[in-house]
This record gives sequence, structure tokens and C-alpha cells, in this order.
Amino acid sequence: MRNLTVNGERLWASLMELAQIGATEKGGVCRLAASDLDGEARRLFIRWCEEAGCTVTVDRIGNIFARRPGRNPALPPVMAGSHLDTQPTGGRFDGAYGVMAGLEVVRTLNDIGYETEAPVEIVAWTNEEGSRFSPAMVGSGAFTGVFGLDHALATRDNNAADLTLGAELERIGFAGAAPVGGRPVAAYFEAHIEQGPILEAAGLPIGIVTGAQGQRWYEVTVTGQEAHAGPTPMPRRRDALVGAARMIDAVNRIGHMHAPFACATVGFVQVSPNSRNTIPGRVFFTIDFRHPEDGVLTEMDRELREACAAAAATQHLEVAVEEFWYFPPTPFDPRLVGRVREAARAQAYPHQDIISGAGHDAVYLARVAPSAMIFVPCVGGISHNEIEDAKPDDLTAGCNVLLNALLETADAPG
Amino acid sequence: MRNLTVNGERLWASLMELAQIGATEKGGVCRLAASDLDGEARRLFIRWCEEAGCTVTVDRIGNIFARRPGRNPALPPVMAGSHLDTQPTGGRFDGAYGVMAGLEVVRTLNDIGYETEAPVEIVAWTNEEGSRFSPAMVGSGAFTGVFGLDHALATRDNNAADLTLGAELERIGFAGAAPVGGRPVAAYFEAHIEQGPILEAAGLPIGIVTGAQGQRWYEVTVTGQEAHAGPTPMPRRRDALVGAARMIDAVNRIGHMHAPFACATVGFVQVSPNSRNTIPGRVFFTIDFRHPEDGVLTEMDRELREACAAAAATQHLEVAVEEFWYFPPTPFDPRLVGRVREAARAQAYPHQDIISGAGHDAVYLARVAPSAMIFVPCVGGISHNEIEDAKPDDLTAGCNVLLNALLETADAPG
Repeated sequence: MRNLTVNGERLWASLMELAQIGATEKGGVCRLAASDLDGEARRLFIRWCEEAGCTVTVDRIGNIFARRPGRNPALPPVMAGSHLDTQPTGGRFDGAYGVMAGLEVVRTLNDIGYETEAPVEIVAWTNEEGSRFSPAMVGSGAFTGVFGLDHALATRDNNAADLTLGAELERIGFAGAAPVGGRPVAAYFEAHIEQGPILEAAGLPIGIVTGAQGQRWYEVTVTGQEAHAGPTPMPRRRDALVGAARMIDAVNRIGHMHAPFACATVGFVQVSPNSRNTIPGRVFFTIDFRHPEDGVLTEMDRELREACAAAAATQHLEVAVEEFWYFPPTPFDPRLVGRVREAARAQAYPHQDIISGAGHDAVYLARVAPSAMIFVPCVGGISHNEIEDAKPDDLTAGCNVLLNALLETADAPG
Repeated sequence: MRNLTVNGERLWASLMELAQIGATEKGGVCRLAASDLDGEARRLFIRWCEEAGCTVTVDRIGNIFARRPGRNPALPPVMAGSHLDTQPTGGRFDGAYGVMAGLEVVRTLNDIGYETEAPVEIVAWTNEEGSRFSPAMVGSGAFTGVFGLDHALATRDNNAADLTLGAELERIGFAGAAPVGGRPVAAYFEAHIEQGPILEAAGLPIGIVTGAQGQRWYEVTVTGQEAHAGPTPMPRRRDALVGAARMIDAVNRIGHMHAPFACATVGFVQVSPNSRNTIPGRVFFTIDFRHPEDGVLTEMDRELREACAAAAATQHLEVAVEEFWYFPPTPFDPRLVGRVREAARAQAYPHQDIISGAGHDAVYLARVAPSAMIFVPCVGGISHNEIEDAKPDDLTAGCNVLLNALLETADAPG
């Protein structure tokens, strides 16, 4: 195992410069997928890649591939990347770190004049967050055939239904010419902040990600009857919000029932008509269930449907619970995971195996190529929040692990 | 007591023509205060009033007064009216009926060449609903000194904070020249659909409204911490929505605890950041408590604060419960209420006394002038809903009661 090191200060400086694009007052970033700011970040990234000697390709769904040639141009590239879009109140590291770490690997290889056997590609996937256009991970999902391209391009802005992802990508100049998918991938690495508290609590700079939790996402529509809040006696009400509130409480209870690994979240709620003095006639909300075991997810699904039916019955409501998105627990490639572990050992970084609670582009890439991830701690375990933070030393450590694990793969392809 | 009758078909025709402005697919009306459609409805109303020989005055906050002169021009007018704005998914009768009933009274007096002693005025108050600009009943509230004019004009669109009521009134041409308030009022009558199930259940066409319930409105802000829905273990979460859901459930429970008169509603909810895979860091919602007894409202207030604090504690949240609006139970003028009852008797309409659960412009008018209301049933007790409906015969009955009770007052002022 090689034992090279990146320029951690340069990595940090690039992260901080990128974080200016969409910077919020509270120190976070709001850079929604396919927004003007996303376009600006993409252009800065491409400029940096071209300055580092890479050739840039953009595909029809806006995924960006920046290639540093290898000795053998016939070999498929080893990729490192993540995403540049953020949550509405997101942080400076979620996604950006994986892309900038890939760039720093290339810059380091340039510094020392290192020629890999296979080409190396830095990748920025479109719309990983899924907060402006649902579902999440659409760029990598389309690339790996999880979503049809037309379907992906036709997804609508959650807050402005007349805007599609395709049209918005075109508007910002990132509906590229390259076809989506079919691009050979020797291996895919993704460095990422943990977005959870485990590494920080254990005092470890590196997490060896062995796989990702399974996820079930739902859309729930509760229908009652709108009525005037004043003269409608309590027993005659069909208050959709009261039913929804009990379902939201049940979702939380189901999460706690399957401790310690289950996660259960209602993140999005829309009340209709949402008027102070009208009993809500309709509530739409989303559910996000996660667990490393498929059997537990199936059990949680059963409990959810039971709880929703029971809550609806108390208020004489109708409820529709629709599974919106599912993917099974995904183990990463054992050989690649092993190289990440060896790279951490070679640098003498304390580390532990960890399962990713979040979805990542790597989870889709694992369907078409050997894939692995490297986690670094984030402060307080907090992510999807403007106060998201990470320590420069940890970010450098993660990037060093990425560099050496990636070289091991790029120099011994196949 | 006189025993004249209006032209019920003409009243119905005017209501249906007015309901075309902002008509929704489901047969309701969406005509938000100070919107273009509100402007269109106002202009139609003014045209009808002028065709009926009335002189129209618009005050600074857009309240419209259409005067039919009396024998003695020195006497203050007897007013009949209500409002032209609707809920976002409102019906054809809420508000519109009271204004059109006032117009029908004037048209009937014209038909028979009846000259009243005091002038008669038809009034349309601005922004009764309070769903676009909060609080509700701003036009009558400013007129009666409940709200300062500048404050009222500066209230902001709940969904577009850069739009004020004042600027929007100006835009639609209804920031009038007349000062707000100080206009003498001999008496105020308001005909309205009940917006509740009592009259229909009892099979009665007329409700003699003896007063209005007290109301307490609140704004609640629950603050936790945003975090990624995937990797944040359940016990570490500070999920503002889980806390809010328990508070919403508690509001409903408090309403039921004070049966049969209490009403308790959460109508408006805003979740931040409202993203499917982010634990909500902040939830804002509103509460509407109503009861005919002030002591019970005080007890409900205590229970609410206790329940909110308890729910917040379970999730380590902060909660701020702010009273946003209060008015005490309001009895109407016994002499005017008596005339409404006598008018119903004179026409042999079955009737009962009833307390208004909803706020109405008449509740504010009662602060500056003798006031009374006439209720007619609405189908299924449903209001603030596109399927709101009322029977033509009941609407005619209410208008006949209005005509005779109003004449009794306009001919024997003082």
C-alpha cells in the first residue's frame, strides 16, 4: 500500500471558496440542485478541473466527469466524487467534501508527476439531496439505470410545479451532450462526512463504510373535511391534521421501537388549506424509514400502515400510505472496502467499520461498479444544518485514505 | 312589526352572479382579500349599488358604504352588510350573503317606493377572513378602533411577506379617500349562514343570534435542531415536528374536554426546513380556541401551556406560546336582537336563539353601535369549504327578517 499525502490546506481552501457560493448568514450553504448557485458552483469546479489538466464531460442530466488520463487510455477510469448541491439549510461539507477530495487527489498526483495506469475521474452527481426535486440521488440513479432519464428530467420542483429538473438544468447550462450511463467505471470511491455522531463519540478520524442502510420512503395523504373552526362542534369534525399529528407521533414511536439502528422521520408536511380558522381538510406528509436489515424494514412498514389506519379511524378520515422509494440494504465491494481499511492502517489513522445511515451516490454506483466510501467525523454529528462543521485534520485524513486506496485500484486494475 | 318581503329570486341570482368571480372547479369560491378577484367583486357590488340609487363611499382601508338616503338626512344610517372576501377554498355564501341581503333590502325598498326615516347603508368590510392577511376582521376592526389604521394597512400577506394589505388595496383601486371610523352608525345588522350544524339539525330556517363566543388565538413556535434523517440516532434527535404533533393532539384533546361548547383548532402549520430527509428544526403553528365563557377560555389557556411545555420537554425542544388575538364573549344589543326575533315571528318562521361560534364583523361593530345578527342554516353545517351550500328559501327567509327588523329600526331611530 502506497503512503502518499495530499495538501490539506489546499483542500480546505477550495472547500471554503466553494462554500461562498450560496453561503448563508449562519455559516451554512443553500445551493439547491439546478439553481443559479448550483450552476455557479459547477462552473467553478470545472474551471479548477481544467486548470488541473482534466478533460470535462457533462451528460444529459448534468453529471460532470473530469478525467485525468492514465498510462493505458483503454482502461475504464477509477472515479472519486460526490455532489455539489445542498439542502435548503445545508452545510459546507455534505457532498462538497467528496468532490473537492477527488480534485485534491488529482492535484496531488499532478504535484508529484504521478501517472496512474487507469485514468482517474472526479465526478459531481446531479441533485443528490432531493430537497428541491424528489427523489434524491437522481443523477447517480439515472446513470446506473435506477431511474429512466425522461422520468428523471421530468421531476418537478417541490415548491414550483411548473419547473422541471430538465428545464432548470438547461437554463443553468448543464443539460450536457453526453449520454447518461453506459460510461465504464472500474471503481467508485466517495469520501463524505459521517452526518452522524458515531465517529466523533469514538474519537476516530476515519470510518470504513462497509455498506448502507436500507430505506423505505413514503408519501401519506390524509383526507378529512374542511370546515369553519368556530361553529363546528368537536365531535362532528373530520380534522385531517389531528389524524396526521397522531401518525407523525406513531412514526417516531416506531423508530424508537426498533432501537438502536432504526431511523424514522417525517420531514415534509403540507396542510390544506392552511388557514388559521379552517379545520384542515387534507394533510400530505412524507416518511423516511431506515434500517440495516430488510426484515426490520418490513416489520416497520406493517406497523406504520396499522398506526395510520388506527389514527385515521378516530377522526373518520381517509388515509393513503404510498411507498415512494425503496432500496434494500447495500453492502459495498469487499475488496475496495479492504483497500480503504489498509490505506487507513498505512497512515496509522484510528478507524472503525461503520454502516451508512444516509443514502449516497455510492449506493447507486454499487449497482454497476465496485464501490466504497470513507467517512470522516462531523462536529456534534450534525448535518443537513447550517452549523454542520468538520475539522480540517479529519478532512485531510479522509483525503489521504482516498488517495492511497484509489491509487491501489488505479494502478492494479481488473 | 312590518311584514314586507324581498324578491328571493333576485337575491339568489345576485349571489350566483357574484360567485362567478373566483369560482373554483368544485363549486366554491377563492376570492382572497385585496386580490384582483376581490377588486372585481367590489366593482360589481358598487355598480349594483349605484344602479339601486345609492351613493358609494370607500374608506382608506377599503370598507365600502353604499347609502340609500332617508327622509331625515341628519340621522345616522342603519347599516346592513358583511364581507366579499373568502377563504382560499371558500364557499358562495359566507360573507357574500350578508352583503347581497343588504342590497336586496335596498332594491325591495326601491320596488315599493318606501322611504325610511334614517338612511340605510349597505356595507362590505375589508378582509374579514384573515386567511391572506392576519388577523381576521381587519376592516371592521380598524373602523371600530380595535386596530390602528397604520398597523392594519401594514399587515403582510401570509405567503408573500413583501406584500402589505395597504399596498394591495392600492393596487386594486380600493385604498379609498374617506377616513376610517368616525362614521356614525345608528345600528348594524348582519345576515349570515350559520357555518355550523345546529339550525339544520333542528330544522329551523332562522337563528336569532344573541352574541358571539369568546376567542383566543395563539402562535406557537417549536424549536429543535435540524439534522440528517439518516444517520441521526433516535435518542439524539430534537425533532421539532414530533413535539408539535403532540401539541396539536393536545389542542384537540383540550377542545373535547370542554364539550359541548369549546372549539379548538390548529389550522396553519409551517415546518422548517420542510425537506423529506431532514429532521425538522422548527415548526410554527396557530391555535384557535373558542368558548362562550371567559372562565373556560382561561382554563383552556392554562391547559394549553402545560401541554406544550410537557410535549417540548420529551424532545428537548424550546416552545414559545404567544397569544396573538383575543376577544371576550360579546353579547349583541338586546333591543335589536328582540326586533330580529319579532320579525321572525311576524313571518311565522320557526327559529331559536343561537350563539355565534365564528367571529363576524358584527362582533366588532357591537363595540360602537347596537348590533345584531340573523343566521340561516347551511347544508351539513359546512363552511370554509368549496361545497358550502344554502337553500334559496332559507336565504330568502333570512333576508325577509333582515328587511323588517331593519325597517323597524330605520323608521324609529334613537
